[in-house]
Amino acid sequence: MSHPSTTARNRSGHTVGAAPTAMRRHEITLRTAAPEHPFTVALHAEVTGPDRTIRIPGFYDGDGMFRLRHLPLTPGTYSFRTVSDLADLHGQEGTFDVGPARPNDHGPVRVAGFHLAHADGAAHLPIGTTAYAWTHQPEHLQESTLASLRAAPFTKLRMCVFPKWYQFNHDEPERFPFEGDGDGGFAFDRFDVTFWQHLEARIDDLADIGVQADLILFHPYDRWGFATMTSDQDDAYLRYAVARLAAFPNVWWSLANEYDLLKSKTPEDWERFAAIIGEEDSVGHLLSVHNCWEVYDHSRPWVSHASMQRVDLYKTAEMVTDWRERWGKPVIVDECGYEGDIDQGWGNLTAEEMLRRTWEGAVRGGYVGHGETYLADDEVLWWSKGGTLKGQSPERIGFLRKLLEEAPGPVEPLPGDWDAPRAGVPDQHVLVYLGFNRPRFRTFRTDPGTSWHVDIIDTWGMTVQTLPTPQEGTFRVDLPARPYMAIRLRAA
Amino acid sequence: MSHPSTTARNRSGHTVGAAPTAMRRHEITLRTAAPEHPFTVALHAEVTGPDRTIRIPGFYDGDGMFRLRHLPLTPGTYSFRTVSDLADLHGQEGTFDVGPARPNDHGPVRVAGFHLAHADGAAHLPIGTTAYAWTHQPEHLQESTLASLRAAPFTKLRMCVFPKWYQFNHDEPERFPFEGDGDGGFAFDRFDVTFWQHLEARIDDLADIGVQADLILFHPYDRWGFATMTSDQDDAYLRYAVARLAAFPNVWWSLANEYDLLKSKTPEDWERFAAIIGEEDSVGHLLSVHNCWEVYDHSRPWVSHASMQRVDLYKTAEMVTDWRERWGKPVIVDECGYEGDIDQGWGNLTAEEMLRRTWEGAVRGGYVGHGETYLADDEVLWWSKGGTLKGQSPERIGFLRKLLEEAPGPVEPLPGDWDAPRAGVPDQHVLVYLGFNRPRFRTFRTDPGTSWHVDIIDTWGMTVQTLPTPQEGTFRVDLPARPYMAIRLRAA
Repeated sequence: MSHPSTTARNRSGHTVGAAPTAMRRHEITLRTAAPEHPFTVALHAEVTGPDRTIRIPGFYDGDGMFRLRHLPLTPGTYSFRTVSDLADLHGQEGTFDVGPARPNDHGPVRVAGFHLAHADGAAHLPIGTTAYAWTHQPEHLQESTLASLRAAPFTKLRMCVFPKWYQFNHDEPERFPFEGDGDGGFAFDRFDVTFWQHLEARIDDLADIGVQADLILFHPYDRWGFATMTSDQDDAYLRYAVARLAAFPNVWWSLANEYDLLKSKTPEDWERFAAIIGEEDSVGHLLSVHNCWEVYDHSRPWVSHASMQRVDLYKTAEMVTDWRERWGKPVIVDECGYEGDIDQGWGNLTAEEMLRRTWEGAVRGGYVGHGETYLADDEVLWWSKGGTLKGQSPERIGFLRKLLEEAPGPVEPLPGDWDAPRAGVPDQHVLVYLGFNRPRFRTFRTDPGTSWHVDIIDTWGMTVQTLPTPQEGTFRVDLPARPYMAIRLRAA
Repeated sequence: MSHPSTTARNRSGHTVGAAPTAMRRHEITLRTAAPEHPFTVALHAEVTGPDRTIRIPGFYDGDGMFRLRHLPLTPGTYSFRTVSDLADLHGQEGTFDVGPARPNDHGPVRVAGFHLAHADGAAHLPIGTTAYAWTHQPEHLQESTLASLRAAPFTKLRMCVFPKWYQFNHDEPERFPFEGDGDGGFAFDRFDVTFWQHLEARIDDLADIGVQADLILFHPYDRWGFATMTSDQDDAYLRYAVARLAAFPNVWWSLANEYDLLKSKTPEDWERFAAIIGEEDSVGHLLSVHNCWEVYDHSRPWVSHASMQRVDLYKTAEMVTDWRERWGKPVIVDECGYEGDIDQGWGNLTAEEMLRRTWEGAVRGGYVGHGETYLADDEVLWWSKGGTLKGQSPERIGFLRKLLEEAPGPVEPLPGDWDAPRAGVPDQHVLVYLGFNRPRFRTFRTDPGTSWHVDIIDTWGMTVQTLPTPQEGTFRVDLPARPYMAIRLRAA
């Protein structure tokens, strides 16, 4: 007979004595004699809170422990009742009280027009970076990655559940999501709970430093068979991942990195995966799928935002304009080329070009993700293994983040000149980006009766020079004839 | 009664005693009492040479002189007979002998696949630049332009017949194509022959330094009414221009700069203009029309080559690939943005970006034209008035020209990598362009049994570093991790 206990865990995943609070995950634990096939036990709970009743899936976590995780979004009294095909786990009931959210707990990220906001309404700027396989590296390297992120401007990290086998990534990880190993093969029906516990601790670590985990559920760079499991195995894996992870506020679901390179999957597979997540994820985390050459149909109703790789080598972040119009959803260019110097064209941009693309996306009302691929003798490249950031773009992306945070709201594209996109908040705040062009001056024509503070922004030099007096009507702004300049007008 | 005389003119337009030679214009002059309406006199000649009989139009050149110009392409004996509605000019006959072409006279430029060649088969590389209104400037400035061109790599100059009124171009020219002036207006039915004689001398000056005159027949930047003449006036102007200029070997016809901004003209007008040139130009010079936003239908049979302005601010010369496929004709991007620092996005590229676009066009089997727009207190900007070249791209475009001339033939696109276009001559010569990417190495896989000299080319630094030994099979080429590099493979 199992006796349920409910516990709150802190962001590092450790059980604490604190009472449950909103926007923080809550866990119901059922202990029982370990069954022979624990991963096929059917278990869920119905949880009724102040607003609604939801269904949360349970999962086996080893040592005879089954867990059911829940992310309460509002304070109040909650009750639950379990349903299982294992008598011991069936019909367990309980109640618990959830207190108000703590100050830094804003809840999961949602779509807000073409932008994002937390469940409590706080804005979220997805300033992304990529370290696909950082959790599969030695511990000291994972700690180094966290230290780098702590000092960096990023608020989102693209990362894979499965380990990665690819250029500069030919190491066997210490843990695998399934029982087995790379030599003897894997029991795809038996999860290695230590892998998942480790992954969860790392997701909590990211939450601690304000970073969303954009979790990639499938990817093609595989030597272990994780990319070519059967449909049943795929589905069981997905259900297990969602049962474990959906209660983490800072999780996003990315069905794939480069779905179109996963040749063993069909269009129907991706749709079925999305449906499974829809069923199992009671929180409704952001959900998308990312392309290599063939853009996914992001008009599908389950796609929360377009997670894009640029498909043209030359016109990249500028496509945000078209993509917003095409799908009417937030556009996040998760792969727009990376700062670095490797042999491949996706990984040898200058920092200037990486930054330019980030700005181009931003002033079109989208978000461009960072990545870094500098050749290194130790083969530790940030884009895959994490570690230390070596490039010049992150600091400057941080400068852009600061400017975006200074705006009175999410910056939306505004009517502008043919050669310089504009974004801002109408009548209040205008950002004009000049990109690779380098005029020695620009002329502005503003509405009669309006007056503007004019800031000359060097996006590379990270300086803001404000003209001594507000400007009105038609005025000329002199510029230094360098690329990567922007001009900001703030209503005076 | 008129007595025809035939004269050869040298390239500066002066009558010389030398006998006519092929590939050089030849002129038949008829003197008569000046009629009251000399410009409406109908006059042409039938000229029969060794290969064929052609019709050449005559024109009035002032002082009672009518001229009929002819460009013989082959040596031999020629005879002519005039036809006119003026009795004095009708039925004049004569014969003349044309000697072999002189060594530097290669004749007019023709289409040769996706490339160009002179009538005698000599290759022509159209390395273009732009000085729209250079012939409408004070004499000293025109001389300065010619001196600049003499020292520059350019083989083609885009220039307008009509003067230009636009930003940095607010001067009245000394001469106009019609009688009259900017204050009192113009007699569109009476040509000012001194204007045309001057223009011809300048076209000859260009020929002397090996530069093709890409003559723009209409353009929208007008304050004198030349852009808004009646159809009859347009047609008479065109016929007059062709009668005067078709015998100049180094003339190309450009129906318009930015035809779509000439709002007074209809699609039918452009087609009629092309038909008139087809009728009147016995040489068959290159003929195209150039767009602002709306690309002309370059599949029209009279279009010899696509004269393009880039239509996307970001994907520019890279479009050569698509455009070649679309029209199956040479692609010359006459306006791809200019090196400079003026306020407008078409005129404030860095030299690096101007050069990058030139290379991108070249390795796609097209040609990108140069322009320069540096702000100047004297308002002399090369793109319009000519004068002195100040930028850093011309020298480097010359370096590209030299590399193209070193190839064993016109470079054609070759199958390459997704991130680095290739062009060359199959099995002999390969140019790989890396553009804004900056790899620290590239790996090449060449066919078994082939061996290659490998040149590492810094297109900005204008250096060629050849690996000490030829390479075979799969080999790695180390690179300096800078943008704007190219690699050349030459069959060993």
